[in-house]
Amino acid sequence: MKNKHMQQAIDISLQKMEENCGGPFGAVIIKDGEIIARGWNQVTSTNDPTAHAEMVAIRTACKHLHSFQLEGCEIYTSCYPCPMCLGAIYWARPDKVYYANTAKDAAHIGFDDAFIYEEIKRPPAQRKIPFQQIMREEAFRVFKAWQEKEDKLEY
Amino acid sequence: MKNKHMQQAIDISLQKMEENCGGPFGAVIIKDGEIIARGWNQVTSTNDPTAHAEMVAIRTACKHLHSFQLEGCEIYTSCYPCPMCLGAIYWARPDKVYYANTAKDAAHIGFDDAFIYEEIKRPPAQRKIPFQQIMREEAFRVFKAWQEKEDKLEY
Repeated sequence: MKNKHMQQAIDISLQKMEENCGGPFGAVIIKDGEIIARGWNQVTSTNDPTAHAEMVAIRTACKHLHSFQLEGCEIYTSCYPCPMCLGAIYWARPDKVYYANTAKDAAHIGFDDAFIYEEIKRPPAQRKIPFQQIMREEAFRVFKAWQEKEDKLEY
Repeated sequence: MKNKHMQQAIDISLQKMEENCGGPFGAVIIKDGEIIARGWNQVTSTNDPTAHAEMVAIRTACKHLHSFQLEGCEIYTSCYPCPMCLGAIYWARPDKVYYANTAKDAAHIGFDDAFIYEEIKRPPAQRKIPFQQIMREEAFRVFKAWQEKEDKLEY
């Protein structure tokens, strides 16, 4: 199945890789049939480990829409989202995601996507990066304050 | 166990929540005993669904260090990272993460962290946000071009 929006995401992935912006990843976000955001990997060129194609596209689309939600939008990404980008997609709540390459394909060319998916399944104490819980009682007081806050904007 | 860095993360979470920046979440990043970055949730105030406390802190720390890696750094976050932030932590590769509230605590006050962890475990086709694969062959050609690229900067 050929699709012009996915072709655009793939074209961006190649072009920006050739321009040494970062890894070979591109994404576009579509609303009402029109592109409202383009994204490409910029990790190494901007020293930002969060600057994946989908993240950049989501941030741009939300800025364009003046909203932190992407209802009515579709994301086309040249590769299946890594856990970070998958999480961002869930927070942004688009209607649908189309992807081309898989997490295994990304692993095959040297990216950690599949490894991070494995790590997420492990208990915090058994992970490669150690996680330790401290001071939950003090922090939970702030959560209670959020619950009681009357003028909060939920998301 | 009391810890001054975690106390700072918790203090930020309360202060920025009260200033209506976003949800009740704060983080600090420490290198050689010093704070090199502070982060707090800014989702609703900046219309950016990716602006979680850890994300903001990681981006700030990397800018400070002129690096896309956080070797030698520790992250203190007032709540266990959501899947997006956990992914970002794996890409940034700090030495250790300390957290206070749990993902269940976050769910208890109305945040989707635990739900997104559940969704990640599901096959793409069974998720609440539908994922569909198209045009893998075309996209994989770009991955091959990355493999063959001689001047690539890996990350």
